[in-house]
Amino acid sequence: MQSLPFPFPVVQWKDGQVVLIDQTLLPGKLEYRRCADIETLCLAIRELAVRGAPAIGVAAAYGLALSWNLNRGAGRPLTDILSAFQDDRVSLAATRPTAVNLFWALDRLGRLAENLVAAADLDADGIGVALLAEAHAVLEQDIAMSRALGLAGQELLPDSATVLTHCNAGGLATGGYGTALGVIFAAREAGKSISVYADETRPLLQGARLTAWELADQGIDVTVICDSAAATVLAQGRIDAVITGADRIVANGDAANKIGTYPLAVLAHRHGVPFYVAAPVSTFDPDTASGKGIVIEERDPQEVQEFHGSRSTPAGVKAFNPAFDVTPGELITAIITDRGVFKPPYTSSLRALGPDMELK
Amino acid sequence: MQSLPFPFPVVQWKDGQVVLIDQTLLPGKLEYRRCADIETLCLAIRELAVRGAPAIGVAAAYGLALSWNLNRGAGRPLTDILSAFQDDRVSLAATRPTAVNLFWALDRLGRLAENLVAAADLDADGIGVALLAEAHAVLEQDIAMSRALGLAGQELLPDSATVLTHCNAGGLATGGYGTALGVIFAAREAGKSISVYADETRPLLQGARLTAWELADQGIDVTVICDSAAATVLAQGRIDAVITGADRIVANGDAANKIGTYPLAVLAHRHGVPFYVAAPVSTFDPDTASGKGIVIEERDPQEVQEFHGSRSTPAGVKAFNPAFDVTPGELITAIITDRGVFKPPYTSSLRALGPDMELK
Repeated sequence: MQSLPFPFPVVQWKDGQVVLIDQTLLPGKLEYRRCADIETLCLAIRELAVRGAPAIGVAAAYGLALSWNLNRGAGRPLTDILSAFQDDRVSLAATRPTAVNLFWALDRLGRLAENLVAAADLDADGIGVALLAEAHAVLEQDIAMSRALGLAGQELLPDSATVLTHCNAGGLATGGYGTALGVIFAAREAGKSISVYADETRPLLQGARLTAWELADQGIDVTVICDSAAATVLAQGRIDAVITGADRIVANGDAANKIGTYPLAVLAHRHGVPFYVAAPVSTFDPDTASGKGIVIEERDPQEVQEFHGSRSTPAGVKAFNPAFDVTPGELITAIITDRGVFKPPYTSSLRALGPDMELK
Repeated sequence: MQSLPFPFPVVQWKDGQVVLIDQTLLPGKLEYRRCADIETLCLAIRELAVRGAPAIGVAAAYGLALSWNLNRGAGRPLTDILSAFQDDRVSLAATRPTAVNLFWALDRLGRLAENLVAAADLDADGIGVALLAEAHAVLEQDIAMSRALGLAGQELLPDSATVLTHCNAGGLATGGYGTALGVIFAAREAGKSISVYADETRPLLQGARLTAWELADQGIDVTVICDSAAATVLAQGRIDAVITGADRIVANGDAANKIGTYPLAVLAHRHGVPFYVAAPVSTFDPDTASGKGIVIEERDPQEVQEFHGSRSTPAGVKAFNPAFDVTPGELITAIITDRGVFKPPYTSSLRALGPDMELK
């Protein structure tokens, strides 16, 4: 039974506030956090009430529209408003120091505000309207990206396909449509019936908590498995395609994504199941030749030592917590993007993207 | 800092009681359950205070020694004692309906009691002494099995080796020495320094809870990882050997073991790391030709949907919980047993075990 419209209202502008689905409460409760000031919004980003790089970018864009709105007072000079606005921009930038889309969105609205103040064509209200329109555009472009990616990718799925996915590359991580899950939603929009196995995705369980929730909420058949059971569902012939997202794709198609993606690619290859990576071209990093150039980030061992807040590992025992792994391009059947589907060898095929490969 | 002697006192006979390390409290607390009657012992087995097929066998053997001891009254006829003893045997058999070693131990002591009563050479006290001696023998034979297996297997490990293991095939699962971990303990006894990466082993986290605890307790360097990070530690060249246990090994070397074992074998193979299975010959099932003949048991989906009572998956979302998977013999570098190390092709090499292959 679908409870949310589609695309999801992950981040909305409502009554002059930034309103977010509170992902810290999922899957237990669907509640919204209303951010009427920048402090509340910064806390929401820091606490992962909104997460996923594209979704954070959208939240930050609305955050700067909110900031201008709050700072413009009757007769207050534009330069004063801009100064307070820039302080808020700094606060928002400090919430998640490695989130590329966050900085990109803050720069986009920040530069617009600077240019509009410099041009002096609009008053404070007019600039507020322009900034809000720009934030709406950030959201709409994100959804358009997901739609384009989903349309391109859904062609790869037969009707009645069963898809295995990992982590959450869904509507909740983006403006409400998703990349890996966007392909599934687009297949549904094309009239196909798709079933999904979702890896629970230790340590933070985004698969069990978020992917399972958003698919079930959208009425898509979903079954959660432990990450280590993926090999069995592949060996048993239950899976027609594996689709994951990616955090970064380098020149030869090697893709960094949530820890546990690489073993899925190895196992899919062994069992003759196509392994697809779904990510916008903004994820491409053509300046890095291969996955060897990707430094694997390690996160707090406590994430491994605990399960959902309950400690599983003896006190004093170490844990190693690599946040992502690198899947060699040779194991990726195709890369699904908002600019079409690319196949190996990626070093040549991705060149078709031309100058856009320089975007990131 | 080692806190327990080695082998561990997993199951002991003490002051006329069966005393067990309460594994439900590990790794938080090291406490013992004293079972002064059969009901308490049955509850301990059912609640997994003692788990692991060999350890359950030892507990059941001591349980029948306890039963005889409690039932023999001054002047009570042997047939009356035997009748009450048989009732307790039925109760113990009902605790874990699929545990092969449980039935094996109950039959061994049950038949002994029947024979001694029929022979009428001993009085009730004498039969009690004989049953207790038999239970001690069950424990000692289990430790001897582990020692023999460990000795054979440790030859495969160089000094300063780093081993990756899965689940708990350790002292806690046996009479106190272990199979996969027995190889590591034997390597230490041979003067080698071994480090271990332990997969946490979802859904029940035996790796994080039990393997990490017993290795740390024995002063062996151990690092816990999420199951899906095993591929990364293998790809990074951190691992010299993977060693797991097995629940059942069929004629061609295909091995059933805890879910998540098979993907480790595939990944070890890809990265040129030897993959060893350590299991006593009693685990062999020569009557089944290949892993295709092994039915994969499914356990309660709730184990996947939660941990330690904390729910991760949305209410109403399905989970699939296969308890084990099957590793093809062709991916197993060697099978380490109490009767030596066997190498592929197993269909011929395991034949060297001769009539013992019929034991199970």
